[in-house]
Amino acid sequence: MTKLKVKTGKREELYEITSEVQSTVSRSGVSEGICTVYVPHTTAAVLIQEAADPAVGRDILTHVRHLFPREAAYEHAEGNSDAHLKASVVGTTATVFVEKGKLCLGTWQGIYFCEFDGPRSREVWVRVQG
Amino acid sequence: MTKLKVKTGKREELYEITSEVQSTVSRSGVSEGICTVYVPHTTAAVLIQEAADPAVGRDILTHVRHLFPREAAYEHAEGNSDAHLKASVVGTTATVFVEKGKLCLGTWQGIYFCEFDGPRSREVWVRVQG
Amino acid sequence: MTKLKVKTGKREELYEITSEVQSTVSRSGVSEGICTVYVPHTTAAVLIQEAADPAVGRDILTHVRHLFPREAAYEHAEGNSDAHLKASVVGTTATVFVEKGKLCLGTWQGIYFCEFDGPRSREVWVRVQG
Repeated sequence: MTKLKVKTGKREELYEITSEVQSTVSRSGVSEGICTVYVPHTTAAVLIQEAADPAVGRDILTHVRHLFPREAAYEHAEGNSDAHLKASVVGTTATVFVEKGKLCLGTWQGIYFCEFDGPRSREVWVRVQG
Repeated sequence: MTKLKVKTGKREELYEITSEVQSTVSRSGVSEGICTVYVPHTTAAVLIQEAADPAVGRDILTHVRHLFPREAAYEHAEGNSDAHLKASVVGTTATVFVEKGKLCLGTWQGIYFCEFDGPRSREVWVRVQG
Repeated sequence: MTKLKVKTGKREELYEITSEVQSTVSRSGVSEGICTVYVPHTTAAVLIQEAADPAVGRDILTHVRHLFPREAAYEHAEGNSDAHLKASVVGTTATVFVEKGKLCLGTWQGIYFCEFDGPRSREVWVRVQG
C-alpha cells in the first residue's frame, strides 16, 4: 500500500491525481492487474471523470452542492454535514485495471481526489495487485 | 481484460448486461474469485439493481433526472453536464463475487450499464480474478 | 466468501458492521490484502463513513431522504422506489485494504450497512484476498 499526499487549496475542489496513481503503478512493477485507490477520509472522495474540460468538474461541484447545501437543518455540529453527504454519494474507492504497466482509463477519464471540506492535507492510499 | 460492446438505443437507458458478464466469467475458467466491471466512459455508469420489475429502472432514471435536469446553469458547453453528474453519483465500477464459476448476485439483482448520454456505441470492460 | 447476518430495526438505519467485518478478516488469516464487502440486496447499501458522531449518520439518512422522498410519482408498485434510488447512489460494494491482519480504515471511518427498506433480516457478503 502506497500513501500519497494531497494538499488541497479550497473548501471544494476536484484535484487530479492520475499521474501520481500512474507513478505508483509504475513503481509497483505490476504489468497486468488491478489498481485500487482509497480515500481514508469522511469528507472527501475519489471520482473517475472527464479530464479534458475543467468545466465538467466545476459543474459537478456546483450541482452536487445544490443537492446538499452547506447550510441546512443538519444535526452534526461541526458545520460540514454537507461534505459527509457529498462524500457518501461519490464514494471512497476507485478501481482501475492495469495492462502493460499502464492504468486502463477511458479516453476522457482521469482520477480525481474530491475535496469537500478543505483546504486540508489529505492522503490517498493506493494498492496495485498483479 | 475482456471488452464487451454495448449499443444503447436512447439518451437514457438501463441496459442489462448480466448475461454478458456471466459469459465472460464462464469463459475465464475462474471458479472462485472476483469479477470487476468497469465503464470507461464519463457519461455512463454501471449499477447493480433490481432485475425483476423494469419499473424500478424507469423510476431510477426519472428521479435521478430530477436531481440533475438536462437544462440548468451548467458551464460545460457540450450540453451533457447532467450526464456527467449522473455518472458521478452512480459510479464506474461494479464488483461481484464468483463462486463455482457463477456470479454471486442477490436474488433480485442484475448488472446494468447506465446510459446517460446516448444513443451510442459503448464499451464495458470486465476482469475476472481467481 | 463469508455471509454475515444483519437484522435491522427500522425502515432506515445505518447499522455499523466494522467489528463483524474485522472478525471475518481475522478469521481469514490474511495478513496483507483487500477486503471486499458486498450487499446482495436492492434496497440496501454499504457505506464507509464517520463512526465518531452518530449525528452524521442521521444527517445522511435525513438529507438523502430529501432527494428521494418516500412518496413521489414512482411507477414501481411496491412503495419502495425511494429505497432503490437511495441504494443506487450509495452503492453495493465497499473495498478496504488489509495490513497486518487489520482493516485499514481512516481515523474516523467505520463500515455501515445502510438499510433503506427495513426492518428486515439482511445479509452482507465478505471476501478477503491475500
